[in-house]
Amino acid sequence: MRVMDVLVCTSKDQTAWRDALAARLPAARVHAGPDAPPCDYAVLWKPPGDLFAHQPRLKAMFSLGAGVNGLLAMQELPRDVPLVRMEGAGMGPQMVEYALHAALRELRGFGGYADAQAAACWNPGHARARRDLTVGVLGLGVLGGAVACALADFGFDVVGWSRTPRTLEGVDCLHGNDGLDAVLGRSRLLVMCLPLTPDTDTLLDATRLARLPAGAAIVNIARGELIDDAALLTALDAGHIGAAYLDVFRDEPLPPSHPYWRHPRVIVTPHIAALTDVHAACDQVADKIRCLEAGLPISGVVERDRGY
Amino acid sequence: MRVMDVLVCTSKDQTAWRDALAARLPAARVHAGPDAPPCDYAVLWKPPGDLFAHQPRLKAMFSLGAGVNGLLAMQELPRDVPLVRMEGAGMGPQMVEYALHAALRELRGFGGYADAQAAACWNPGHARARRDLTVGVLGLGVLGGAVACALADFGFDVVGWSRTPRTLEGVDCLHGNDGLDAVLGRSRLLVMCLPLTPDTDTLLDATRLARLPAGAAIVNIARGELIDDAALLTALDAGHIGAAYLDVFRDEPLPPSHPYWRHPRVIVTPHIAALTDVHAACDQVADKIRCLEAGLPISGVVERDRGY
Repeated sequence: MRVMDVLVCTSKDQTAWRDALAARLPAARVHAGPDAPPCDYAVLWKPPGDLFAHQPRLKAMFSLGAGVNGLLAMQELPRDVPLVRMEGAGMGPQMVEYALHAALRELRGFGGYADAQAAACWNPGHARARRDLTVGVLGLGVLGGAVACALADFGFDVVGWSRTPRTLEGVDCLHGNDGLDAVLGRSRLLVMCLPLTPDTDTLLDATRLARLPAGAAIVNIARGELIDDAALLTALDAGHIGAAYLDVFRDEPLPPSHPYWRHPRVIVTPHIAALTDVHAACDQVADKIRCLEAGLPISGVVERDRGY
Repeated sequence: MRVMDVLVCTSKDQTAWRDALAARLPAARVHAGPDAPPCDYAVLWKPPGDLFAHQPRLKAMFSLGAGVNGLLAMQELPRDVPLVRMEGAGMGPQMVEYALHAALRELRGFGGYADAQAAACWNPGHARARRDLTVGVLGLGVLGGAVACALADFGFDVVGWSRTPRTLEGVDCLHGNDGLDAVLGRSRLLVMCLPLTPDTDTLLDATRLARLPAGAAIVNIARGELIDDAALLTALDAGHIGAAYLDVFRDEPLPPSHPYWRHPRVIVTPHIAALTDVHAACDQVADKIRCLEAGLPISGVVERDRGY
């Protein structure tokens, strides 16, 4: 039997990824970097475009991120090779942590207390029950579904929205354009968990921001392109949006001159809401490679026309 | 049958408390304020000391707070009338929210990201699993027990400490002086849920702070007197303590000149970790009054010699 060749090409920690994958595929040759010989499988994060010219016999490509919009935007990406996105791999619990931290900060008014502390001002607020804070979750895939269910389990009132109908226990699930408007109208906290596709690009524009209740907060842990940045800044300045927790941006790293850095009601984090865990991710990729080699179906294959 | 008289004397919202209690005890006369006639029961929060001179026939006194150190410190407090502390009444879930918010902020390094944001610095950190953050909970009563169990359920490594032995599912429970040192030595985050008694006054002094792992964080949602403030400030300045989430203080409101207000690694909140819910609290007091009138035992009676 011919030895399998696997290519690992990532923008950082490439050697760690190669070693972790090699440990899980002892019979394979695992190569790191764009100069590898022609391989059977490629494991990718932000690869150079010319990589694919030297990879004529790939059977499948694996994205190390859950979002594949970056890979799909590459002209050089082979159209006839299956692309597989990362599913879960430790990202769900981290997304839950990020969203829950923001939800607790909004529920208990910790942002307001921080402002009061800066003025040495003792000003107790009132208690609010979790069920009285409605959290809207846009996108109910592996990650958005985990966020919606965890917040509902914790006692928040959760309403979810997805492109196609979904059912999640404890979550009021809506879909379609009417469903989106209904979710926006109810969400005191809106958590963006959508993939970036032509349909979701700039989904949260001035019109949809205006549908949110006055003072609502936004969490974006998906992709920066989902939001119209200028419209969000206008809504923040007008006080219509009370806070924005932004982990993702159109340009990353966020340029030092960007107004988000210095806006008093924007909380910037450097794309850390869900860091891919090397070991969990390599477990998943190795399992899927074994399935493909055995002729078995796998989940997470990207449908190119829908974009995820 | 003689009509029962109940006195409500609180430092704020006194009318709301009286109305809520009157609605639950329709056969009783409920009086507000220190000038009431002699009553059978008193419901108290920070009452004036001379109140008790005009209340010769009290059968029981109810504290509207879980901590009764303030009432016990009053010279005028009748020694022979049972004092009942508030148990739960909506405070447990709020304490959980406060502690979980702090635990998530520590786990995910949101404080560091806020500092980085102030410098417009994009500096992603690494993921850390919940089980790798050990949270110590001092005090495992109704509130501390709720905090310990909720954090353990969420996946943190939780070790608890109490004066007498306790058993809580998922929590490593220790007790006694040796147990305290062991808990301190393991706690990356230490949550104070102890009652203030002569035994716990200034429990967290320089020696015990030094036992915590370098960079540990502290949450105080119990009483300010549990901590040696000067020692904590020294440990914060030395970097041995990485952060302090302080909701309670020796002097409240915290004086504007107090260094806690302006310390970059102190998060001050104005004694809001657990706000007593009027309705839940009055349900509890009314139930206990009915029990006492029927000659039935009640929980929450303060043991004067232990102080809670």
